[in-house]
Amino acid sequence: MDFGYDARTEELRERLLAFMDEFVHPAEPVFAQQRAEADDPWSPPPVVAELKAEARKRGLWNLFLPGENGAGLTNLQYAPLAEITGRSPNLAPPALNCAAPDTGNMEVLNEFGTEEQRKAWLEPLLAGEIRSAFAMTEPDVASSDATNIETRIERVGDEYVINGRKWYISGAMNPNCRIFIVMGKTDPSADRHHQQSMVLVPRDTPGLEVRRGMRVFGYDDGDHGGHAEVLFHDVRVPAANLIGEEGGGFAIAQARLGPGRIHHCMRLIGMAERAVELMCRRAASRTAFGKPIAAQGVVQEWIAEARVEIEQLRLLVLKTAWLMDTVGNRGAHTEIQAIKIATPAAVQGIIDRAIQVHGAGGVSQDFPLAELWAAARTLRLADGPDEVHKRSLARRELRRYV
Amino acid sequence: MDFGYDARTEELRERLLAFMDEFVHPAEPVFAQQRAEADDPWSPPPVVAELKAEARKRGLWNLFLPGENGAGLTNLQYAPLAEITGRSPNLAPPALNCAAPDTGNMEVLNEFGTEEQRKAWLEPLLAGEIRSAFAMTEPDVASSDATNIETRIERVGDEYVINGRKWYISGAMNPNCRIFIVMGKTDPSADRHHQQSMVLVPRDTPGLEVRRGMRVFGYDDGDHGGHAEVLFHDVRVPAANLIGEEGGGFAIAQARLGPGRIHHCMRLIGMAERAVELMCRRAASRTAFGKPIAAQGVVQEWIAEARVEIEQLRLLVLKTAWLMDTVGNRGAHTEIQAIKIATPAAVQGIIDRAIQVHGAGGVSQDFPLAELWAAARTLRLADGPDEVHKRSLARRELRRYV
Amino acid sequence: MDFGYDARTEELRERLLAFMDEFVHPAEPVFAQQRAEADDPWSPPPVVAELKAEARKRGLWNLFLPGENGAGLTNLQYAPLAEITGRSPNLAPPALNCAAPDTGNMEVLNEFGTEEQRKAWLEPLLAGEIRSAFAMTEPDVASSDATNIETRIERVGDEYVINGRKWYISGAMNPNCRIFIVMGKTDPSADRHHQQSMVLVPRDTPGLEVRRGMRVFGYDDGDHGGHAEVLFHDVRVPAANLIGEEGGGFAIAQARLGPGRIHHCMRLIGMAERAVELMCRRAASRTAFGKPIAAQGVVQEWIAEARVEIEQLRLLVLKTAWLMDTVGNRGAHTEIQAIKIATPAAVQGIIDRAIQVHGAGGVSQDFPLAELWAAARTLRLADGPDEVHKRSLARRELRRYV
Amino acid sequence: MDFGYDARTEELRERLLAFMDEFVHPAEPVFAQQRAEADDPWSPPPVVAELKAEARKRGLWNLFLPGENGAGLTNLQYAPLAEITGRSPNLAPPALNCAAPDTGNMEVLNEFGTEEQRKAWLEPLLAGEIRSAFAMTEPDVASSDATNIETRIERVGDEYVINGRKWYISGAMNPNCRIFIVMGKTDPSADRHHQQSMVLVPRDTPGLEVRRGMRVFGYDDGDHGGHAEVLFHDVRVPAANLIGEEGGGFAIAQARLGPGRIHHCMRLIGMAERAVELMCRRAASRTAFGKPIAAQGVVQEWIAEARVEIEQLRLLVLKTAWLMDTVGNRGAHTEIQAIKIATPAAVQGIIDRAIQVHGAGGVSQDFPLAELWAAARTLRLADGPDEVHKRSLARRELRRYV
Repeated sequence: MDFGYDARTEELRERLLAFMDEFVHPAEPVFAQQRAEADDPWSPPPVVAELKAEARKRGLWNLFLPGENGAGLTNLQYAPLAEITGRSPNLAPPALNCAAPDTGNMEVLNEFGTEEQRKAWLEPLLAGEIRSAFAMTEPDVASSDATNIETRIERVGDEYVINGRKWYISGAMNPNCRIFIVMGKTDPSADRHHQQSMVLVPRDTPGLEVRRGMRVFGYDDGDHGGHAEVLFHDVRVPAANLIGEEGGGFAIAQARLGPGRIHHCMRLIGMAERAVELMCRRAASRTAFGKPIAAQGVVQEWIAEARVEIEQLRLLVLKTAWLMDTVGNRGAHTEIQAIKIATPAAVQGIIDRAIQVHGAGGVSQDFPLAELWAAARTLRLADGPDEVHKRSLARRELRRYV
Repeated sequence: MDFGYDARTEELRERLLAFMDEFVHPAEPVFAQQRAEADDPWSPPPVVAELKAEARKRGLWNLFLPGENGAGLTNLQYAPLAEITGRSPNLAPPALNCAAPDTGNMEVLNEFGTEEQRKAWLEPLLAGEIRSAFAMTEPDVASSDATNIETRIERVGDEYVINGRKWYISGAMNPNCRIFIVMGKTDPSADRHHQQSMVLVPRDTPGLEVRRGMRVFGYDDGDHGGHAEVLFHDVRVPAANLIGEEGGGFAIAQARLGPGRIHHCMRLIGMAERAVELMCRRAASRTAFGKPIAAQGVVQEWIAEARVEIEQLRLLVLKTAWLMDTVGNRGAHTEIQAIKIATPAAVQGIIDRAIQVHGAGGVSQDFPLAELWAAARTLRLADGPDEVHKRSLARRELRRYV
Repeated sequence: MDFGYDARTEELRERLLAFMDEFVHPAEPVFAQQRAEADDPWSPPPVVAELKAEARKRGLWNLFLPGENGAGLTNLQYAPLAEITGRSPNLAPPALNCAAPDTGNMEVLNEFGTEEQRKAWLEPLLAGEIRSAFAMTEPDVASSDATNIETRIERVGDEYVINGRKWYISGAMNPNCRIFIVMGKTDPSADRHHQQSMVLVPRDTPGLEVRRGMRVFGYDDGDHGGHAEVLFHDVRVPAANLIGEEGGGFAIAQARLGPGRIHHCMRLIGMAERAVELMCRRAASRTAFGKPIAAQGVVQEWIAEARVEIEQLRLLVLKTAWLMDTVGNRGAHTEIQAIKIATPAAVQGIIDRAIQVHGAGGVSQDFPLAELWAAARTLRLADGPDEVHKRSLARRELRRYV
Repeated sequence: MDFGYDARTEELRERLLAFMDEFVHPAEPVFAQQRAEADDPWSPPPVVAELKAEARKRGLWNLFLPGENGAGLTNLQYAPLAEITGRSPNLAPPALNCAAPDTGNMEVLNEFGTEEQRKAWLEPLLAGEIRSAFAMTEPDVASSDATNIETRIERVGDEYVINGRKWYISGAMNPNCRIFIVMGKTDPSADRHHQQSMVLVPRDTPGLEVRRGMRVFGYDDGDHGGHAEVLFHDVRVPAANLIGEEGGGFAIAQARLGPGRIHHCMRLIGMAERAVELMCRRAASRTAFGKPIAAQGVVQEWIAEARVEIEQLRLLVLKTAWLMDTVGNRGAHTEIQAIKIATPAAVQGIIDRAIQVHGAGGVSQDFPLAELWAAARTLRLADGPDEVHKRSLARRELRRYV
């Protein structure tokens, strides 16, 4: 159980921190202005491309991806780096080609894709030339229970025919999002974990309709391609677009979820650190009723509690990363669930208090806090609401006693 | 301590409920669509004007205003009506000409305005022909402590010259917002509660710059005129635009706050009722893991707690209204503070849980919950953060023991 | 919905407050000393009898009991008086002959008892000569679900034969507790709400074994007769000892619960007021790090929140009392459940914070806070855990939407 | 940052777990009965001496003490062992001679004592022959601020004369508590951290009066010597009884606190594990409303949250232990404060929920939960209330921004 940062991690941390200070943080106001003035509301502002070029030049690229196609880091090595990117979550992850949902999609293609699939889609994704989407969530069912999924993927001859409705398909409003990984049922009569399959659907396939951008608390998240409602009307793709095996969709989804969750949690910790920093700065610099806010009422309490929570979250995430590296994602199942339960909720609370310290500024576009809050809050729902994960973890705990 | 609804209240409730069912709720999807497609992002969608006409015809007009200029209701009579309007807070309050900040501004003009001021501004406001703004909050200071206000109102000859910066001036982005009540310091050397004055500044006065719309979370609230940042560069108005006396600004602000707070709290309770209704409907109709969400986990707990909290909030608000009617706003000071402390925080929590029950839909534009949440959250900051009110209430409680 | 205190209530409040100041509060240290030095750990210290005599002389007697046998007050009239007694919950309620479980038992006998039963047991209880117990809770089942009760009451000839085990039978360790009302099943095959009956069992009936005193957080509550584990081994009583009808036990229990719950909640509010007073006194008088605790950190926040919560709880309890008076206990079902959910939990929190302000003193026997806390905490379990009441209230709320 | 359990730790864990299963847990009911029937309420029941003998025989002795006088373990090695003892906190720590306050006192004597002091007091303590007390807390001042301490230690000739009042002196009611380490002021005019000194005062020194046992909630904790109020009336001890230097009391107290806090936190985690186990067993075995409690309402939520909290707490404690071992107690200052803030509060909450699942049994003497709860609650006050630690931690965090 050694969570220390090894030499490679330390070296990359230093490089990444320098990149943040020299490029990312200075780009934040530029990004905000470009976003406000954008003609195309669904594409990243131009400054992102500049950051990507610089990051790639500096070897800060595809850090998330283990193995030879990526930077080859372990989860434990990547964790502190992902945390740092969370301090500027709209800019740093895409700059490093480490943004969801591409990361998960690249992992899926890397692990389960055929050579052709990898050539067609993984390569341009690794190069940061295109973006991708992962189409799983559906509006009409509680899709945190994957067996509820209603999208139909039917084998007809040597094609698959897809019909269904998805929403909150992140990134899909971006015209440069060229490829969709679509989860649906190929065999509704199979046992509950073998009904689903995943297929690759290029954006321009007839019948694929990207209908509208869904919002999160008023934000359209256009700079990273929004969250689309997507319809599939008799969409046809070659049978070769199947990823892995027929009926293997559930297993691939599970494999995809572990890293996805831990990346989110790592970044959330960085978001919390940013919030604490802003809260402290504000509390130290604002005066009301004759003394700095930092010397008043509950603010010190909030700061202390935030620090104590962050310490605990980080350790839990690091332990989980270490477990994934040593016993595998399956062996780390309980811990992955634990960080998913603990991190978004705690970070949401920390950001909320930072907002409170900022007064009206806290809910405004002049500070990153309100947008960070919306992201953290949404992660209590994304990929299954907290309650589903708690239920599952508790049932495992109870199993010893029944 | 009789909080019962009297005959007039019951009669108005019935009329209002009928108006909600027949006109307001059916107008909600129309409103959403008009808002999404609006050319002018800062004016109310056309359906609002239709609702206003209908409400006025039905005698559901200016219900908030006591005395002969308004409907002549007491606070206790108005409370349950305001609550009902909170169920559709973007539509019902403006439809009834009972929306902030006009309500508070009409009260100020009604109570403190000269005959000329009332003729010029109160009459068109009462008729729902124009909108108005109240410019108090400033970005650069903790303006919950009114003595921090930095905007300068200087008497020069028979004019006042205004310089300063305000933000979160609700409604001011709407071009039909014709008049601003501006709070600033006429005499910074006076004692701390007599430094401030209020003046009327018509929108087209040279030097008044409405710079941009501030956001709350991702919302610009354009349908009710947004929340503007406003600059005053050597803005000149006749001395006759002073409201009340020089140095009387703090007292007028205090007088304005009591009704403002209770109206907000009444509507918040209506918002909470809407959230509980949505939460129940969703929980009863969605199925996961083989049974309705309503039969699972913590959802019943959430519903029960919400109901119990709402009951308590409503009683506290009704008692406060009754006190304001019987002993005056000053005598109800503690209770007004208590509802300001209790209501937004509890309602925010209730809405948050309703969101959780809705999954991704909860944070989306397809349900009113996320927008309701943002409104409730912001009311924990508007007009002083919770902590300021708690501090003040506690100091009064402690006074007996020192 | 008029919760005002009428003339009779005001007059009784004044009389009661005078009694508290002149007799009860001065008796508190005497009580503590007598309790510490008592030979008999299960009987009230002698000072209680003195207070009873004085209270009776002053007409502060049996205030809880409506109708001609008691003081004839409504629930709304009794509520503020019960609240006052909660400020000294070990002394004031027994002094006024208004202590549980006698109150509920007297209500049952008054309403459902035969003339003989009333003569034998109600009269000495009303005179404060004996005490009584109510034997419902069982250790071996979740007895918050009354259908789980396992104690058997079998009709054999013209006797009932009782077998079973009960615990937490409050007051039963006191040798002067002369009579037990015992709930058990006379007909396990009847429908679930008609299996139970109640019978009167005098203390000295053969086979009734008062085994030991159960504790609550280390307290044995000996001064009010403790909480006994009681065994019934073939206990035989005449058939005339049945209360009401066979199979009527569930209905009687329900009838008994409403007033019992509201009395507890009223007193809890008085306990909370006591805690706030102690918290304020301590915060105002103790200094740490150079200034009074009252001027530091979160203490003001705690005081304000306590005040706001108490105001809400009191209004909810008063409304419930008013409803019980006007539409009956059945009509007030939801509200009775609401106060049971809201009051103990909130008051427990308020007392906990008062403890925290007192440092080590807070958990000690030198302040009443720790004992008040244990009482409040236990009321979250007594008569059904919070969760059972929330579940039931939520199901009623949901019924409209299914 | 390697928190893994090394070979020695694993070996000791196995031995300790075997001892718990074979001796400690079976001794619990014996202990309870002996305690209930004890003639001497302030001495450990005889079974404790038997456990001590067995533990010593098995080499499970003085595990807390680093260096050659103890078992020589690091904090990181001791942590998981202390956690295990927390599962039976009345029995296991004294059985292993690892109970507070002896542990801290032995550390002080080991590190700061003269050879004579060590011979006289450390040796019999290490042998488990006598017990000891640490007299710091005072009833009349907020002694979490050590500069408030009022006890006077005055040098007169070659003696120290002590006058003062202390309370909550744990263990001191036990007649076998032979030695007191007393903190008081030798030089009130020195700078605030050099006013205090510590002296050794044997129990039978004239003028030392052990007045009474203080309670925590209803518990007198007699089995581990209670918590005494102690008076010092002109108590005289030889100057050679000074520990360390005059004016060094504050520094010694600080040195003592680090290990004391982490030991408490380790044991608290064991207490939490016990609570979760009991909660799961109960939830799995009790039925209400037709299904096991484990399948209902919020219980799964509570279990999952408890598990996630415990995981986080354990990691934070292990990291702190590791830091103390690698950079010293001073370098681990923030982390020591963090565990003191996080652990008692979270564990209190976990135990509270376990109580709730047990119904009336939860607050009774038939389950260990109520007593565990009281211990956890008290640790939120002992050695400074949470708020003092939060304030201090926050000020350190804020220092970077001022």
